[in-house]
Amino acid sequence: MLIELTPGATNTLTDVEGLRVGHHQRTGEGYLTGTTVVLCPPEGALAGVDVRGGGPGTRETDLLDPSNLVDRVHAVTLSGGSAFGLAAADGAMRWLFERGRGFDVHGTGEGHVVPIVPAAVIFDLGRGGRWGATPGQEFGALACADAEAASTAQQLGCLGAGTGAQVAGGLKGGIGAASAVLPDGTVIAALMVLNAVGSTVDPRTGELYGARHLLPGDLDDIPGLARGATLRPPAADEVARSRELALDAGADGRPRTLATTIGVVATDVALSTTQCRRLAMSGHDGMARAVVPVHTMYDGDTIFGLSTARRGPADPLTFHLLQHAAGEVVTRALVRATLAAASVTTPAGSWRSYPDAFPSALALA
Amino acid sequence: MLIELTPGATNTLTDVEGLRVGHHQRTGEGYLTGTTVVLCPPEGALAGVDVRGGGPGTRETDLLDPSNLVDRVHAVTLSGGSAFGLAAADGAMRWLFERGRGFDVHGTGEGHVVPIVPAAVIFDLGRGGRWGATPGQEFGALACADAEAASTAQQLGCLGAGTGAQVAGGLKGGIGAASAVLPDGTVIAALMVLNAVGSTVDPRTGELYGARHLLPGDLDDIPGLARGATLRPPAADEVARSRELALDAGADGRPRTLATTIGVVATDVALSTTQCRRLAMSGHDGMARAVVPVHTMYDGDTIFGLSTARRGPADPLTFHLLQHAAGEVVTRALVRATLAAASVTTPAGSWRSYPDAFPSALALA
Repeated sequence: MLIELTPGATNTLTDVEGLRVGHHQRTGEGYLTGTTVVLCPPEGALAGVDVRGGGPGTRETDLLDPSNLVDRVHAVTLSGGSAFGLAAADGAMRWLFERGRGFDVHGTGEGHVVPIVPAAVIFDLGRGGRWGATPGQEFGALACADAEAASTAQQLGCLGAGTGAQVAGGLKGGIGAASAVLPDGTVIAALMVLNAVGSTVDPRTGELYGARHLLPGDLDDIPGLARGATLRPPAADEVARSRELALDAGADGRPRTLATTIGVVATDVALSTTQCRRLAMSGHDGMARAVVPVHTMYDGDTIFGLSTARRGPADPLTFHLLQHAAGEVVTRALVRATLAAASVTTPAGSWRSYPDAFPSALALA
Repeated sequence: MLIELTPGATNTLTDVEGLRVGHHQRTGEGYLTGTTVVLCPPEGALAGVDVRGGGPGTRETDLLDPSNLVDRVHAVTLSGGSAFGLAAADGAMRWLFERGRGFDVHGTGEGHVVPIVPAAVIFDLGRGGRWGATPGQEFGALACADAEAASTAQQLGCLGAGTGAQVAGGLKGGIGAASAVLPDGTVIAALMVLNAVGSTVDPRTGELYGARHLLPGDLDDIPGLARGATLRPPAADEVARSRELALDAGADGRPRTLATTIGVVATDVALSTTQCRRLAMSGHDGMARAVVPVHTMYDGDTIFGLSTARRGPADPLTFHLLQHAAGEVVTRALVRATLAAASVTTPAGSWRSYPDAFPSALALA
C-alpha cells in the first residue's frame, strides 16, 4: 500500500473527534501502576474487541459480541494491577452514572442508566515493590475526571496504565499513541499500553522491529527525544552491552515476567460492531509487527475497536484502508511507546528506557 | 528471543516426521492453478485452525473446534480455484478411503472409515485465462499419490496450490516452506501458499518486510537463486521502476485482486487440539510480519496447526518456544515463497517474480 497516510493534528487517540483520554497513576510506597480511561461521547461509541493473548484480564467483552444487545460503550478502562485492576472500571461506571451517562434502560425512570465500561488490564504486580499495590475504583473515577478536564491529555510515556509497564523483562514500557488521516479525511488512531513478554527490539541488531512503519513526524513529539532525532542501527558494542535488556527470555527460553499489551483503535467513521471487531483484529497485526513474540500464553493481549460515527458509514474501500491503517497506527503507537518510556528504579528492580539503553540508535539529522 | 533456532534438514514441512507433501497442478489451456496435499500419518494428526481473513473458503473447520468429537485429521488440502477448489478434498477423501485411512466409525465394519480432510482455498480464478479452469476432485487424489511417492517433495516455487498465486496484484506468488529445530530437538515447520492482497515488499524501499526474520541457510536452497546470494536494499532507480508491482492497491486504494494466503504449521511434539489452534494463531502473527496489509476482507487467510505427536507432550516452556517459532517459520516460509517464485505470462496477464523485478536486491556475498 502506498496510499498517503499522514498523522493527525496531535498524533494521538484524541484526534478522533469525541474521544477524551485521562490518566491516574501512583508511584512510590510500593506503587508503580495506574489507570488510563478512554472516555466516549455521552451517546457512547460503537465497539468491538479482539482478545488474542493467552492470559487475558477483561470485563464486559462478552457484551461486545456483535450478536448481543448493547452496541455502544461509554468508556474503556485500561489498567495495571492484573485482574485486581479491573476494579478501576467500577469507579469509571460510578463517575458516568453520576452524570447520567450509560445504557438507558428504557422507560424505567430518569437516570436509570447502566454505564457500559469494557476493561482490560496488564500484569505489573509487584513492580513498585508491593504486590498488592494495585489500582482501585478511585483510579477509574480520577482518570475519568482527568479525561473530562483535558481533552488532549498526554498519551506518550510512563503514565496511567503504562506507569508500571515493561518490555521483555528489562526495558521500560509505557503508553504510546499514533493517528492517521486517510485521503478522504477519515481519522483513525490508536492508544496502546506496551507491556510485553516479547520485545520491541531485535536483539540481534538493537533496532526496533516496527520502525519501518513510522510516518514522517512520528519522532517529533516524543518526550525526552531531541527535536530532529532519527532512528539508525545502534553501534555493535552498544548492542552487545544492552542486548540482555531486549531479550524476553532467559537462557532456557523461559519468559522473565508475565505481561500483556492492551489498547484501543478508534475511528470517526461509522462502523458496525462487527467492523469495530475487525479493526481490533487488524490492530493485532500491527502488534505482531512491533513485538516479537506476541500473543503468548503469558500475554493477555487485547484490543478494543471503537467508532464515534461522526462520519460515514464506511464504504468497502474506506474500510479496506481503515484495516490497513489500524495495523499501522498500532505499530507506530508501540514504537512511540518504546521511545517515550523513561528509565525507572524501584525496590523491585530497574528498567531501562530504549533511548537510555541504545543511545546511539537516536541520531540527530 | 535469542533462543537458537536452526533450520531442519530440508527446511520444509516434511522435517516434521510423519508428514508428506504432494502437488498436482495444471498450466495452459486456460489453467494456472493446482492443489497441494499435506498427508498425515495413517493414524492422523491432531489439528486446529485459525481463520483470520475476511473472505475464507474452507471445509471441515467446524470439526476442528476443540470442543467437538474428532481430534485428528488425515490430510489437509490447499487448493487454487476459490470455493470450486474445495472439490480437491473430495478426491483426497476417496484416495484415503480406498486405503482404509480415516476416522474409524467403531464397530460398524471393516473399512468403515470417514477420512477427515480439512481444506482451504486461494482465489486464483481466471489467472490462466479461463475462469472455470479450477482444480477438481482428481487434483486431490493425484496430489495424495504424489505425496505418497515423494516424502520430501519440492515445497518452494510455483507448484501445487501456489501455481496461480500472486502478491499485491503484480508480483508472482507461490509456495514456500521453512522449518526450525528447538534446542531440545522439537521440530516445527510451515508450508505456506503466498497469494495476498497485500505485499511482501515494502514499496518505499523494495525490501522484503519479513527478511529480518530469516535464519542462516534460508537462501541456500531457493530455486533460481545463485548459491551464496544475500539480500540487500535494492537500488533506488529499480525501486522506482518496479514499485507498481509491489503496490497492493490502485491510486484509489482499491485492491487489484482478491487473494488469500493459506498454509499449515506443524510440529512433532504432542499438542492438544486447543494448542494446535494456538500454533495456527501464532502463525498468523508471522503472516502479519511478512505481508502488509494482511487479513483484509479480500483475503481468506487461514492456517491449520498440526501435531504428529511423535514427541512430547509439550511442557509450558516448550509450548512458549513453539509459539514464537510458529510465527518465525511462517514469516520465513513467506519470504522464501517470494524469492522462489518464477515470472509468468498467460492470456490473462503477467506477474513478475521478486528476483526479476528487484534483481539488485540479491547480492552475491
